[in-house]
Amino acid sequence: MTDAATSMKTKLPIACFVLEIVLIILFGTLVQYDAETDARAWHNKTHFDFENDFYYRYPSFQDVHVMIFIGFGFLMTFLQRYGFSSVGFNFLIAAFALQWATLMQGFFHGMHGGKIHIGVESMINADFCTGSVLISFGAVLGKTSPVQLLVMAMFEVTLFAVNEFILLTVLGARDAGGSMTIHTFGAYFGLMVTRMLYRPNLNKSNHKNCSVYHSDLFAMIGTLYLWMFWPSFNSAVTAHGDDQHRTALNTYYSLAACTLSTYAMSALTAHDGKLDMVHIQNAALAGGVAAGTAGEMMLTPFGSMVVGFLAGIISVLGFKYLSPVLEEKLKIQDTCGVHNLHGMPGVLGAVVGAVTASLATVEIYGEGLRDVFPDVASGRVDASHQGGIQAASLAVTLGVALVGGLIVGLVLKLPVFGAPSDAACFEDNVYWEVPGDDLITDGQLTAVRTEETEKLSGPETQ
Amino acid sequence: MTDAATSMKTKLPIACFVLEIVLIILFGTLVQYDAETDARAWHNKTHFDFENDFYYRYPSFQDVHVMIFIGFGFLMTFLQRYGFSSVGFNFLIAAFALQWATLMQGFFHGMHGGKIHIGVESMINADFCTGSVLISFGAVLGKTSPVQLLVMAMFEVTLFAVNEFILLTVLGARDAGGSMTIHTFGAYFGLMVTRMLYRPNLNKSNHKNCSVYHSDLFAMIGTLYLWMFWPSFNSAVTAHGDDQHRTALNTYYSLAACTLSTYAMSALTAHDGKLDMVHIQNAALAGGVAAGTAGEMMLTPFGSMVVGFLAGIISVLGFKYLSPVLEEKLKIQDTCGVHNLHGMPGVLGAVVGAVTASLATVEIYGEGLRDVFPDVASGRVDASHQGGIQAASLAVTLGVALVGGLIVGLVLKLPVFGAPSDAACFEDNVYWEVPGDDLITDGQLTAVRTEETEKLSGPETQ
Amino acid sequence: MTDAATSMKTKLPIACFVLEIVLIILFGTLVQYDAETDARAWHNKTHFDFENDFYYRYPSFQDVHVMIFIGFGFLMTFLQRYGFSSVGFNFLIAAFALQWATLMQGFFHGMHGGKIHIGVESMINADFCTGSVLISFGAVLGKTSPVQLLVMAMFEVTLFAVNEFILLTVLGARDAGGSMTIHTFGAYFGLMVTRMLYRPNLNKSNHKNCSVYHSDLFAMIGTLYLWMFWPSFNSAVTAHGDDQHRTALNTYYSLAACTLSTYAMSALTAHDGKLDMVHIQNAALAGGVAAGTAGEMMLTPFGSMVVGFLAGIISVLGFKYLSPVLEEKLKIQDTCGVHNLHGMPGVLGAVVGAVTASLATVEIYGEGLRDVFPDVASGRVDASHQGGIQAASLAVTLGVALVGGLIVGLVLKLPVFGAPSDAACFEDNVYWEVPGDDLITDGQLTAVRTEETEKLSGPETQ
Repeated sequence: MTDAATSMKTKLPIACFVLEIVLIILFGTLVQYDAETDARAWHNKTHFDFENDFYYRYPSFQDVHVMIFIGFGFLMTFLQRYGFSSVGFNFLIAAFALQWATLMQGFFHGMHGGKIHIGVESMINADFCTGSVLISFGAVLGKTSPVQLLVMAMFEVTLFAVNEFILLTVLGARDAGGSMTIHTFGAYFGLMVTRMLYRPNLNKSNHKNCSVYHSDLFAMIGTLYLWMFWPSFNSAVTAHGDDQHRTALNTYYSLAACTLSTYAMSALTAHDGKLDMVHIQNAALAGGVAAGTAGEMMLTPFGSMVVGFLAGIISVLGFKYLSPVLEEKLKIQDTCGVHNLHGMPGVLGAVVGAVTASLATVEIYGEGLRDVFPDVASGRVDASHQGGIQAASLAVTLGVALVGGLIVGLVLKLPVFGAPSDAACFEDNVYWEVPGDDLITDGQLTAVRTEETEKLSGPETQ
Repeated sequence: MTDAATSMKTKLPIACFVLEIVLIILFGTLVQYDAETDARAWHNKTHFDFENDFYYRYPSFQDVHVMIFIGFGFLMTFLQRYGFSSVGFNFLIAAFALQWATLMQGFFHGMHGGKIHIGVESMINADFCTGSVLISFGAVLGKTSPVQLLVMAMFEVTLFAVNEFILLTVLGARDAGGSMTIHTFGAYFGLMVTRMLYRPNLNKSNHKNCSVYHSDLFAMIGTLYLWMFWPSFNSAVTAHGDDQHRTALNTYYSLAACTLSTYAMSALTAHDGKLDMVHIQNAALAGGVAAGTAGEMMLTPFGSMVVGFLAGIISVLGFKYLSPVLEEKLKIQDTCGVHNLHGMPGVLGAVVGAVTASLATVEIYGEGLRDVFPDVASGRVDASHQGGIQAASLAVTLGVALVGGLIVGLVLKLPVFGAPSDAACFEDNVYWEVPGDDLITDGQLTAVRTEETEKLSGPETQ
Repeated sequence: MTDAATSMKTKLPIACFVLEIVLIILFGTLVQYDAETDARAWHNKTHFDFENDFYYRYPSFQDVHVMIFIGFGFLMTFLQRYGFSSVGFNFLIAAFALQWATLMQGFFHGMHGGKIHIGVESMINADFCTGSVLISFGAVLGKTSPVQLLVMAMFEVTLFAVNEFILLTVLGARDAGGSMTIHTFGAYFGLMVTRMLYRPNLNKSNHKNCSVYHSDLFAMIGTLYLWMFWPSFNSAVTAHGDDQHRTALNTYYSLAACTLSTYAMSALTAHDGKLDMVHIQNAALAGGVAAGTAGEMMLTPFGSMVVGFLAGIISVLGFKYLSPVLEEKLKIQDTCGVHNLHGMPGVLGAVVGAVTASLATVEIYGEGLRDVFPDVASGRVDASHQGGIQAASLAVTLGVALVGGLIVGLVLKLPVFGAPSDAACFEDNVYWEVPGDDLITDGQLTAVRTEETEKLSGPETQ
């Protein structure tokens, strides 16, 4: 399968070197330690070491970091012959995106005397932005070259920062866990990109667009890390104290309820009442997405569970009934079903956030209102207005994601990025040295041997 | 293998939906944020944000959480054709059990004006209770339907909470890491359940009750996460400060010593001096179990290592010599050998705890005595009495576990839960869509090809 | 493959039991809780619970712990038939080494009235020392018995502690993340050991010295955990406050930059522009190694990225061009390429540390100078002198490592430790019960079937 068109021999080194050198120059010019990472600045203040933000947020940061690299990376290893690319491209574009996001978010979050200040909170935000790119990666999985992915990441991170700036700074919306900024944005951006990259003849490689036994177990590693650490994700940048605590707790119960509705719906809708790994790997996570906006609010454990419960149902129904329609009618080839895991649950989360915000009162939040809804606490807006802001933010996010995805999708169609042919989709050995390909590999073994196997094993294997 | 008797098409959705809806209603009626998660309550107090219990316990909580979902889940993936069920049913019953445990433990730990208050400590306790259910799952692994497991979890969580209430509140025992409440209880409960579900013809599926090469590597992921995070498990709910610190340290050294004795005993007892993965995956963890009660006490690093050392020896001997006897004579088919990993080491841990408690003095503990043995510090009991309480607690635990397991085992025998036939045990495709089963799968490949393989490969494979 | 020469039936139990019993006796005689783990001592002081060092360091400790057991363990599972040994021997020697390191480092770090005091910081240091042993294990992977490895660990831990003492205490060098003490030391020690154990006929088992598809995915688990948690590794024992914060941040950006240069170089140098898993699994980590010494210094994000960028390039070039030369000309059979991941990047890190130290001023560090360069702050040495100390420390480390490795390598050649024959290298079933070896296993399947497969599948498999 060596092919000049898809060869990365010069394209990938050029892309990586140019991007990284530009990043290094910009970091050298623009980026500084913040007051909690700088030796001089920190020791210039009156405070105790345990007040350093590092101790409030670093454990959550590491959990988020695991979600980005192991969670997303392994979630996508379900494909039988695309594990190297799933984990490996995830690794590459995440490592790029977190650096680029530091700059883009730094511009918009406010410069300090012409400098971007960084510390643990900016690291979390950079990882969050990266998560959005990886969601979009899920939509185009198996059909893009690493150079295309880097180009997509570059544009998407920029648009993410713009959208985030509009929502959080201009409009004053609240979205700590990113139902809108991360999930809705990443999903609809990715869906539009994959729409633009529509391949009518993708069926040529469809026999590889499925899992084998052990690839599904690898994917479960990704699922479980995302599931376990989602409470840290949603609470990572909320206010210190009760806010982080409450957000983690809400997310924990939302996910637990979501898991039960996912199993129920999977058995109900799948063939013969058998559970479908695709649902378990994905829909059980929808509760985390849907608690992204309202998680820091006084949603109550009850409210969190209702949200998670609904998210699981919606997500499985999406996989079962909506995805085939999207592919057939709208020509959206959504490899990982990000619409079901991030798209619809993200919209649900935004709506829940808007409703919960509009119900906020001093009665319920006490002095804590300043942390969760500073504009309501200060009297700048009332609660129902805050709810309206939240709803408007969803609309803005959808707009930016769809228009942005359209444009970036068009850019990615340029025939210079080394995209694989239709027959070479979902196949690692286009871009990777695959061990044993001079002999034979597990994945192929299954396929190659079908005929022989049927003869040999006959009725024993069903 | 589609079969009306085992079909989950209606049974599993009904079970999941009914349980989750009941949970949601009860949470809506009974559960509230505690004073550290509630916005109004937290901001009503005079304290610093860093004093929120979240920062003391959340990192430990996340470690425990990983143990529950990745640790237990992957530990059980060693079976060649039961990986989906091991990880997947573990996921399902854990997600249910942690919600149910929040309620059951909340009832017994003391209501606040008719309400259960929750926060990071209740989340840890819910995960602990879930751990107990997963231990029992290990005993019946491969022989039960997901509906049976949910029913078992429902009853077991309830009995766990009752037993825990008797031990910690009524008797005043100490058991921070749960040698008794979690491990002894979960193991003997599960052993009794599997005894009640005895299958005389289980040999029909015995060829699947073993591992393949990569399934053993997946299982090692589970083992190592359990091993690494056990110090967090044992210290997660001990008192702030030196107690958490000391418990983590004791457990660390107990596990290290246990690992060396496990390797020694495995080579000594196994065939030809070759190491047996079953021992490494399980017995090396016994040191964590055995340090569960005494871990928070002034056990000393020396004492911890002695305990771990003995636990490893006992556990390997159990796998080698006791498990076959239990199966043959007592008809206890203990799939994962939980008696060796959780049963005997749990009893050892209880005994060590009783002895260590009876040796407690103000000399050794200073003011810290109030944290570890409040009843001894207050003069309500003396140290030897505390030791007696610990011993009595072990007896109570064994009693509740065995009687509870007997009754629940009888319930699970009701022919309505979709249990698999003897020939369909240890087989994923009873309850899961397994990829490639229309062709052939790795696991079956090995079995199916035996004959052909012998012919082909002959002497080369040994 | 049962063979009296390699049988572990008596050798391994004797080694494990003797070592563990000696450890237990020495711990009983010499080791005590420190002031933050001892119940009496902690409660004797005036402080708040949140000031206990546990809360500053335990999350980092657990991340380091995961790197040691999962990170190193799974990184080495890339070999097709050596997964049990990679993970399993890693587990064994790490469990031993961390106990032995507690004693050895305790001797040199200063006794308290004849006693070694331990707590979370000593646990981290013990894990660090263990990391060094595991680096050396990477050099000899596949060619040693578990008893040889235990013997190597015993000597290496001792020499590590001596070298660390010379560097940090005698010379006054700074090396928080261990570019010198851990990586350079471990790599060159291991390279010398493998040189002494040179096997001219290793080609007899070379067909097993490579990966299969799923073994490369297991290895990526190791890689990613090392990559994600390296910021915790480098910052785990730096001073509280800005120092931990800054070190984590520097390492994060160093690794991100390193990842991009690794992908670029891999595509540039590998066959047909295809990415090589060996590079991705290893070279992408070099940025963490290279930031080990200077990570706590005011290296700036820019400086960190430059260092990581260079480390990735050097490391890939090493794998591609230097490793074959080392093997052919110098007879150094470096299974995992530790020279490229730990050796050269470690030296780079030491040099960067020396340069950064020599540029330290009160202007840049303010009061923080006392934390990072106490000797410069106190006026005992000036910055350029500190730089000289750093450079001298590198030379000392190389000397101790090479001489130590030579001697220990000679010891390991003694024909009593059960080393495998040349034909039995890289093969689990010398020391492990391997499932299905009475039938056939995945790994062998591939090999055994080559001939038949070619016939069957023909052009389809390339």
